[in-house]
Amino acid sequence: MKPCEGAGRQQQTAAGDERRLHDDPQCRAEQAQAEDPWRECMDTAVQLALQAGQVVKKALTEEKRVSTKTSVVDLVTETDHLVEELLISALREKYPTHRFIGEESTSAGSKCILTNSPTWIIDPIDGTCNFVHRFPPVAVSIGFSVNRELEFGVIYHCTEGKMYTGRKGQGAFCNQERLHVTKETGIRNAFILTEIGPKRDPATLKLFLGNMEKFLKFQAHGIRIIGSATLALCHVASGAADGYYQFGLHCWDLAAATVIIREAGGVVIDTSGGPLDLMSCRVVAAGTMELAQSIAQELQTINYGRDDD
Amino acid sequence: MKPCEGAGRQQQTAAGDERRLHDDPQCRAEQAQAEDPWRECMDTAVQLALQAGQVVKKALTEEKRVSTKTSVVDLVTETDHLVEELLISALREKYPTHRFIGEESTSAGSKCILTNSPTWIIDPIDGTCNFVHRFPPVAVSIGFSVNRELEFGVIYHCTEGKMYTGRKGQGAFCNQERLHVTKETGIRNAFILTEIGPKRDPATLKLFLGNMEKFLKFQAHGIRIIGSATLALCHVASGAADGYYQFGLHCWDLAAATVIIREAGGVVIDTSGGPLDLMSCRVVAAGTMELAQSIAQELQTINYGRDDD
Repeated sequence: MKPCEGAGRQQQTAAGDERRLHDDPQCRAEQAQAEDPWRECMDTAVQLALQAGQVVKKALTEEKRVSTKTSVVDLVTETDHLVEELLISALREKYPTHRFIGEESTSAGSKCILTNSPTWIIDPIDGTCNFVHRFPPVAVSIGFSVNRELEFGVIYHCTEGKMYTGRKGQGAFCNQERLHVTKETGIRNAFILTEIGPKRDPATLKLFLGNMEKFLKFQAHGIRIIGSATLALCHVASGAADGYYQFGLHCWDLAAATVIIREAGGVVIDTSGGPLDLMSCRVVAAGTMELAQSIAQELQTINYGRDDD
Repeated sequence: MKPCEGAGRQQQTAAGDERRLHDDPQCRAEQAQAEDPWRECMDTAVQLALQAGQVVKKALTEEKRVSTKTSVVDLVTETDHLVEELLISALREKYPTHRFIGEESTSAGSKCILTNSPTWIIDPIDGTCNFVHRFPPVAVSIGFSVNRELEFGVIYHCTEGKMYTGRKGQGAFCNQERLHVTKETGIRNAFILTEIGPKRDPATLKLFLGNMEKFLKFQAHGIRIIGSATLALCHVASGAADGYYQFGLHCWDLAAATVIIREAGGVVIDTSGGPLDLMSCRVVAAGTMELAQSIAQELQTINYGRDDD
């Protein structure tokens, strides 16, 4: 990164010089960069998510060729591949030293390993099954980590035109509106979201339904399944749900949403109750640590392996 | 109904008179009335649903006093009562001879019996639990029957501003767009919606989860639970889902949506596979009769009694 003349020099200049520096767009950008080295990456992510969202929205109305991945209900379309290629090629051109983890590249054999390098973690279409059936919750998700820390998350709800963003230390937003989680602490009366996951063998189904049964027995007000993990997590961030849990999701479902929930005041942890492990294919998120821990305590584990295995 | 001078007289007039008659708004309205005696009622329903939707949308952002009805998870708010009162008082003033079945009036002790009279069947807020938690799918539903036949349905998705309408014999629409169901015939690969229902005793939960398990085992592409029966049924009408089933919903959840699905080319039947019984608290809907029957065949019955008991 070239040091910004403005940011460094500003303190030594007279008031007139300072005004001139503020008026110079190049300098303003460099100054912002010095204050927040990843802000420009985040702005790029927002622009690309919007572009990708338009491609997804157009494709929603068209016929699709559908293939399967890990199971007959784990779907992928040409648009998933196309959008991931669009995002990664644009980002690689702009940031040639950065690394990339993308859902479809990983399926195609790329390694899914988080290093200290700046890394983009991308789900081109979250809610592919919804997308195939034209069911509205469908999103583009772009997370970004440096030194294995999540720096920002950008999630675009393609059919509702909502842009969710979270920047570490700077809050979470949906379009221009600041997001805040709920303060619910117990399962009774809580509003909880989950997703089914791609495995359908009898043992997995038994565990999945057993977990649902517990929360219904404990008088959770409601359980909802909308078919998009990232958008479900955005509902936790926006206070439209109190909690979320899932086994069988991936780091590209989690990366962006985790920053957004944390910046909205919520917590994202492992289903064991310990710290989140982005590669562990499991998660509990909630507005409060008390609710997250209560949910984690009730869950029977469903083993989906790890993303980095 | 006062006979319309225009409609009766038009055939006998010269071309010039005809043009004058077409230009006269009063006459145009009377003519439309003669052609479709319930069109004006439907137009009134659309206007009232819009008004009610604005009340609901505003209330979504405010604090709510929540009470319970048949169980601790069967919720009701002041807004449910307020909106039902708003709708019924406006309709009663305009149509003093008509009858009314409303969710909240029924809870308060009004009889829920369908007669041959023109009858408005109203759910002021479908998705009250969503509404309480600010989870977006929330709708106003207005159905209308004459001689026990459903004539039209109007459903307003309050947070997305979508107006779903269906008029017997005249098609179904969302805003200006005509709706069409899917052609899916089998459970494998189908996209199915359901709702949990208010009972949470162990026997009911076992049946509810057992039903879900079957469709997941049979490789349905997805099962979704969005918390609003009427909007889930609208997704079937719009082709965003292939099928829907539920035990524990009511005639006010079903009346409007049934017309909309049928007019979009779909079917609405009883969970036994027989004809729909609006008062039976159970339903299967789908884009095709084959899929509806396949779903019905797999369901274990959950007894929720009848609305007219």
